[in-house]
Amino acid sequence: MTIYNAPIDEMMFLFNNLKDNENYNEIEKFKDINSDLVKDILDQAAKMNQEIIHPLAQVGDENPCVYENGIVRSPPGYKEAYSKFINDGWTSLSCDPKYGGQGMPKTVSTFFEEMLSSASLSFKLYSELSIGAYNCILHHANEKIKDKFLPKIVEGKWSGTMCLTESQCGTDLGLIKTKASKQKDGSFLLTGQKIFITSGDHDLTENIIHLVLAKVPGGPAGTKGISLFLVPKFNVNDDGSVGTKNGVNTLSIESKMGIKGSPTCVLNFDNAKGFLIGEENKGLSSMFTMMNLERIIVGIQGLGIAETAYQNSLSYAKERKQGKSNNNKNNQTDEIIKHADIRRSLLSMKSIIEGQRSLAFWLSQQIDVSLNHSNEKIRKSAEELVSLITPVVKSFFTDMGTEITNEAIQIFGGYGYTKDQGIEQLFRDNRITPIYEGTNSVQAIDLVFRKVLNNKVLSNFISIIKKEIKEENGKPELEKFSKILGVSINHLEEFAKWLEEKNKNKKDDVSSACNDFLKVLGYVSLAYSWFKITKVSLDRLNENKNFYEEKVNTANYYFDKILPRVEAHYKSAKAGSDSIMKAKFN
Amino acid sequence: MTIYNAPIDEMMFLFNNLKDNENYNEIEKFKDINSDLVKDILDQAAKMNQEIIHPLAQVGDENPCVYENGIVRSPPGYKEAYSKFINDGWTSLSCDPKYGGQGMPKTVSTFFEEMLSSASLSFKLYSELSIGAYNCILHHANEKIKDKFLPKIVEGKWSGTMCLTESQCGTDLGLIKTKASKQKDGSFLLTGQKIFITSGDHDLTENIIHLVLAKVPGGPAGTKGISLFLVPKFNVNDDGSVGTKNGVNTLSIESKMGIKGSPTCVLNFDNAKGFLIGEENKGLSSMFTMMNLERIIVGIQGLGIAETAYQNSLSYAKERKQGKSNNNKNNQTDEIIKHADIRRSLLSMKSIIEGQRSLAFWLSQQIDVSLNHSNEKIRKSAEELVSLITPVVKSFFTDMGTEITNEAIQIFGGYGYTKDQGIEQLFRDNRITPIYEGTNSVQAIDLVFRKVLNNKVLSNFISIIKKEIKEENGKPELEKFSKILGVSINHLEEFAKWLEEKNKNKKDDVSSACNDFLKVLGYVSLAYSWFKITKVSLDRLNENKNFYEEKVNTANYYFDKILPRVEAHYKSAKAGSDSIMKAKFN
Repeated sequence: MTIYNAPIDEMMFLFNNLKDNENYNEIEKFKDINSDLVKDILDQAAKMNQEIIHPLAQVGDENPCVYENGIVRSPPGYKEAYSKFINDGWTSLSCDPKYGGQGMPKTVSTFFEEMLSSASLSFKLYSELSIGAYNCILHHANEKIKDKFLPKIVEGKWSGTMCLTESQCGTDLGLIKTKASKQKDGSFLLTGQKIFITSGDHDLTENIIHLVLAKVPGGPAGTKGISLFLVPKFNVNDDGSVGTKNGVNTLSIESKMGIKGSPTCVLNFDNAKGFLIGEENKGLSSMFTMMNLERIIVGIQGLGIAETAYQNSLSYAKERKQGKSNNNKNNQTDEIIKHADIRRSLLSMKSIIEGQRSLAFWLSQQIDVSLNHSNEKIRKSAEELVSLITPVVKSFFTDMGTEITNEAIQIFGGYGYTKDQGIEQLFRDNRITPIYEGTNSVQAIDLVFRKVLNNKVLSNFISIIKKEIKEENGKPELEKFSKILGVSINHLEEFAKWLEEKNKNKKDDVSSACNDFLKVLGYVSLAYSWFKITKVSLDRLNENKNFYEEKVNTANYYFDKILPRVEAHYKSAKAGSDSIMKAKFN
Repeated sequence: MTIYNAPIDEMMFLFNNLKDNENYNEIEKFKDINSDLVKDILDQAAKMNQEIIHPLAQVGDENPCVYENGIVRSPPGYKEAYSKFINDGWTSLSCDPKYGGQGMPKTVSTFFEEMLSSASLSFKLYSELSIGAYNCILHHANEKIKDKFLPKIVEGKWSGTMCLTESQCGTDLGLIKTKASKQKDGSFLLTGQKIFITSGDHDLTENIIHLVLAKVPGGPAGTKGISLFLVPKFNVNDDGSVGTKNGVNTLSIESKMGIKGSPTCVLNFDNAKGFLIGEENKGLSSMFTMMNLERIIVGIQGLGIAETAYQNSLSYAKERKQGKSNNNKNNQTDEIIKHADIRRSLLSMKSIIEGQRSLAFWLSQQIDVSLNHSNEKIRKSAEELVSLITPVVKSFFTDMGTEITNEAIQIFGGYGYTKDQGIEQLFRDNRITPIYEGTNSVQAIDLVFRKVLNNKVLSNFISIIKKEIKEENGKPELEKFSKILGVSINHLEEFAKWLEEKNKNKKDDVSSACNDFLKVLGYVSLAYSWFKITKVSLDRLNENKNFYEEKVNTANYYFDKILPRVEAHYKSAKAGSDSIMKAKFN
């Protein structure tokens, strides 16, 4: 089994030192969320995740969900753990107190999301979509529906799903075939089949609230004719109690490479009663409220799994003895952590993980501002930055999750390939994250075509970074970092300019460059994060030399060793798409 | 289930056009191995692999090997297939006719190795180590042992293993504890435990011949005191018949991430009777005969699995409809192969795979020269080139196998993560290849410290490439390729010079740069391969425009889009190891 210790010191370092968004600090309702409170929450969260949830990771892998006689059974121990999980209030962490939530900001709940991902992605997924459903209902449903459904979801007694995919449409939702016919009482009857529904059915909650995309006959073709419906597994009586079974049936669950403790369902809707959420034919944009926050959380999954992979390989590297390092003096076999190449591998993981956590913290502040600031203009501007960085966090973090879990296996050697150590499970569990909630390529296309081209939001982001560099102008210890970051920013700007230019008359050049652009923005965003970490660490060096010197050292590693990847991506993209479009693939 | 069609056209293209090693063409005994014969062999091999072996890939994954009452059972159908496999003579393909082999050159058998890897790695592993054992016995054992053991191994009735690893030593074989005590009759009794023994026990052959590293008490410490022994599962009578059971027992088999149809065994040697192979205390170098050829084959495994992944994603991309491409004219949903980004992904796979196959073909010629040329100096020189490129093929091909199977999953989206399509199995099966036969980092260290530093072999290789470029000087269609390849060669030379320099006083810089150097050499070697493919294709363009234009196009892709990675690796490595060695990893 893997080990996991929640990196509370790392999280508190960010909370104490990098809550640097002025607008965030102005949010009235978060003024009491102080360091002591957050530390206390993280301590409790760590206890829960380390002791109760993390042991379930391997259990779920070895005893996958079972589908029998139309019913889905979760792995052994999941029921008991889920019951404690909701009793301790973890589903309600970031929800509105009006519906029973604790009203914590994203700056705090994102740390919790990371811990939960580190502990067990399969277990996490049972409650994760509930928060997605919560957000979707909160922002788009009418008061009656909110009052009826939200308290139970917040409490965790009911869970939620997102039902988008059908066998003929994953990325291209315009092809949806599920139909919704309006009834006299204003409700709808839904008929169709949805696939790949995470937590589509299970035995942990007394009801499951499906948020379903479907087409109302007679509406516009394609994505403009999609509406969003709330369809409960069991109908809910007017008094809020659980009533008769609705027309939703589970046909099967998928046999998957990983996240085996999480049921991925084929759901059949057969005249299932549903309620319109938001306006008819505007379902996609309502669903995107859910999707966007969900995409960030998927990125955090990649980060969380990478953290567990790193902790385990570090621990193994400190114990496993093999060979003699260059600096061996006693002629005894060395622990492999003394070998330069193993250290390089560990630092690659560490520098990416810590940079990502810091970027996620920056993004969490922006989300909190976008949702809670009193000034609409400020909210709007934060929302734009969130929309820019969301696909980066989703794709970049999950791709790095693949890279890091892969490196972790390598450090374990043969022991990484066998099941005992649990390392290979991290590689398999993580592998879904670049796929679901929109494949990473879809994210890259979204980034470039919707958020970079003909849009000022990238320039806004770059201005923030440039301002940061400028403010530190003259500090000799930061000179190296300012200089390299400046060069990277130039690459990013040139790349964006190239995209704008190509978009005018050679769109295929742009389409085939999206993935590279996303990577470049990812690496540069992490460099920006490391720049700020370095600045703070240099300022505080004497308070805790051990901790802050290590930060500056890791920043050096990141700037020297990881950031050069930017140039290869840029150069590769700039070569254009001629050979790509000419290929015949016979 | 996956599809697989052996790429015979690609293989014949190489055999017909790139058998360009003059020394190879001088080898007397291969003069009759002509194009028709090879085509015939490949056709038969394709039939066997496609029809009999490939269907067993999924069977083995779903019905892993079973260990029960001390006995290992292979998956259903493996026995019957193996029986046909040896009856058709496939184990004997490259073996010496003296022992019943067919005496085919590596240029042919490597194609077969690739096909078998594409069809089912698990199935392949039952016979793969037999060839390793064959080579080791052939080169180091006395005539009596050769005559006794080789014919049965060549015939495939007996299989072979390599028993190196013990729980405390993988990479560092100096730590071996297995003991061998000399008996009066000249034989030895071996006692100890070996782990991770591929095909260590199974029910496909009537005997298993273990090649075991052990220490004779009183010998030198560390790797200098290791001897090599042949230890049969069943003792072999003087008449060659299988006799009593030897003291070798299977304690357990591993539960693994992939290659589940191949048993990975813990073997207990308890006074097992063995025979010294080669000289006492010189066992490691004898074992390396086996290891080196085996390492190349592991690289070929990565190539073979990548080919299957590519074929399946290509086929899926041609069928799956989703979204509209930039060039969509009819407003209908496009097959995803029309999307620029999907094409980019497919071309990345294709350009790497075809480049690798060509490099493997070049290497096969060198191996054939090193083993068979009449001139010792030429043999020696070829052997050096083989020793240089062996770690590259092992590590680079298997790492690319990870990259390519990963990309393939991504093209399948959600369907790539479920078990039905078989894509995720390729990702899991391939994942062992960067680990076994020496982890990829060990290969990189071997490459740099043994074959690049203080050694002229890299310069020899570079001279070959430079000569190739020079010969084509002036052909305008090749100008672009010459120029880019020239720049890459410069990077490679500078990098090597930097390593030499650093090795004098900053060894950690070298150690932490090995992986990057191996990657650079890998990418440059592939560029060299593509350069030669392009040259040939331009010459023959009018013979088959469809085929040769595609080659030139793919070369363009490789040079424009993949080769830029070289610079990032070089730059990252050159940044040195200060942050790496300073890190405290608290």
